[in-house]
Amino acid sequence: MTITIIGIGLIGGSLAITLKENGFAQRIIGVDASQDNLDKAVRRRLIDEEMGLEEGIAEADIIVLATPVDVMVQLLPRVLDRAGPHQAVIDVGSTKERLLKEVKEHPNRGRYVATHPMAGTEHSGPEAAIPNLFDHKCTVLVDPEDSDPDAVEMAGRLYRSIPMRIVELDSQSHDVHSAYVSHISHISSFALALTVLAKEKDESRIFELASGGFDSTVRLAKSSPDMWVPIFRQNRDNVLDVLDEHINQLARFRSLLIKNDFETFYRLIQDANQIRRILKK
Amino acid sequence: MTITIIGIGLIGGSLAITLKENGFAQRIIGVDASQDNLDKAVRRRLIDEEMGLEEGIAEADIIVLATPVDVMVQLLPRVLDRAGPHQAVIDVGSTKERLLKEVKEHPNRGRYVATHPMAGTEHSGPEAAIPNLFDHKCTVLVDPEDSDPDAVEMAGRLYRSIPMRIVELDSQSHDVHSAYVSHISHISSFALALTVLAKEKDESRIFELASGGFDSTVRLAKSSPDMWVPIFRQNRDNVLDVLDEHINQLARFRSLLIKNDFETFYRLIQDANQIRRILKK
Repeated sequence: MTITIIGIGLIGGSLAITLKENGFAQRIIGVDASQDNLDKAVRRRLIDEEMGLEEGIAEADIIVLATPVDVMVQLLPRVLDRAGPHQAVIDVGSTKERLLKEVKEHPNRGRYVATHPMAGTEHSGPEAAIPNLFDHKCTVLVDPEDSDPDAVEMAGRLYRSIPMRIVELDSQSHDVHSAYVSHISHISSFALALTVLAKEKDESRIFELASGGFDSTVRLAKSSPDMWVPIFRQNRDNVLDVLDEHINQLARFRSLLIKNDFETFYRLIQDANQIRRILKK
Repeated sequence: MTITIIGIGLIGGSLAITLKENGFAQRIIGVDASQDNLDKAVRRRLIDEEMGLEEGIAEADIIVLATPVDVMVQLLPRVLDRAGPHQAVIDVGSTKERLLKEVKEHPNRGRYVATHPMAGTEHSGPEAAIPNLFDHKCTVLVDPEDSDPDAVEMAGRLYRSIPMRIVELDSQSHDVHSAYVSHISHISSFALALTVLAKEKDESRIFELASGGFDSTVRLAKSSPDMWVPIFRQNRDNVLDVLDEHINQLARFRSLLIKNDFETFYRLIQDANQIRRILKK
């Protein structure tokens, strides 16, 4: 099996390591707009060789799009133009409605499988690629009924080889769910980082005191704007809904503090504690 | 050295393990309002023996208060009433102004050293106690000039034995800094958990998709209201200031989404990325 990965960053590079190590791929080809990324990917042995887009597509059994989601909207139709009847094309993006609309009427739509492996870190680029990033996490297959069954089967085999669990969602549900379990966490971290950095201007010692709790709530604030701004742009309406709800929840805590109503404050924390049911550790 | 720890929960229990293991304490006495906590602490060998408050104070070289901060306000004057000229009393609470006001005029004020080891987890109780919780973290000595030099020296030796770094702050700065690097992270997590739990009522599958980023921003939402409500009550004014600022930052992101101003959104994320300077990993 030859896999061509377009976009050798955190996700593309981590997939490359994983699929080569587990034997699913015999050969990994890297395509990237940045020669610097390709050089790093070769030096780190993430890929076996680099190629241009057209040659990379021609050589592959499976083509994986792992660029920022705005670039995917440009690239996916061009990749599908060249996809043959035995090739599968998958993307790994965090938003789906916009992308699926773009290729809805494409004659090779069936060769494309929309997927979202739910894993990542706050780091980016080929230097951030790590093995085991995806182990035992969840991949969403989005609108799989619009893809050819053999293409879905190839995508499924790829993810199960890692191994990852697979769930299916329609594109609208996927984008709403992603806003809740991923996109809002990033906006919350960005805002928290800005809150504390504003204070730091006056108080340079503030960060000597930062400990584990602070680190874990703001680590996502290190995430790349090149990756995230296109996501927020494409998922704007869902993100706005969740952000409004999050601001409302914070405003409730604020109002309780102002009123010194610590009995209700206590009850809200007990409600929030229910998140224990969901988080594993 | 005999150490009596009043309140054998996450912090008291973890200190107990650490100070016994590293040889700083030859004997650890546990005092707790909950017999269940004491039984657990003995079974887990966190403490060598349990005692009542008065006896526990009498036996100790250093007395450590590790209860929720509302209980500290009640207990600290009673502990100081009984403190002898060679004993040191330290607390490990997350707020200081209220507590220090309480004992400002106490005849034994000098025996008391206000400290805040900046470490914790979202878990609580003796079952949550772990070794290495404090290793190489930071402890704040608060208003140490109001304590007897030999008591400060004893507290310093205790923390350096772990080892922890020591910084000094006045009580007002301490409480402001704690609001920024600890208390606001918890409110943000509680609010995020409530936001997502509200959605979960309709969509039970939402959490299948939650991955590392989500986990790390909401894990603090598992924190105990018994510990946190007294902190928010005592540090209400500082927490309100930081919460207002945090809501403002979120409202900025909201306004940019509404206006589709993704250029400014990009720039704000770049600003937030500056948190990289501060977070180690």
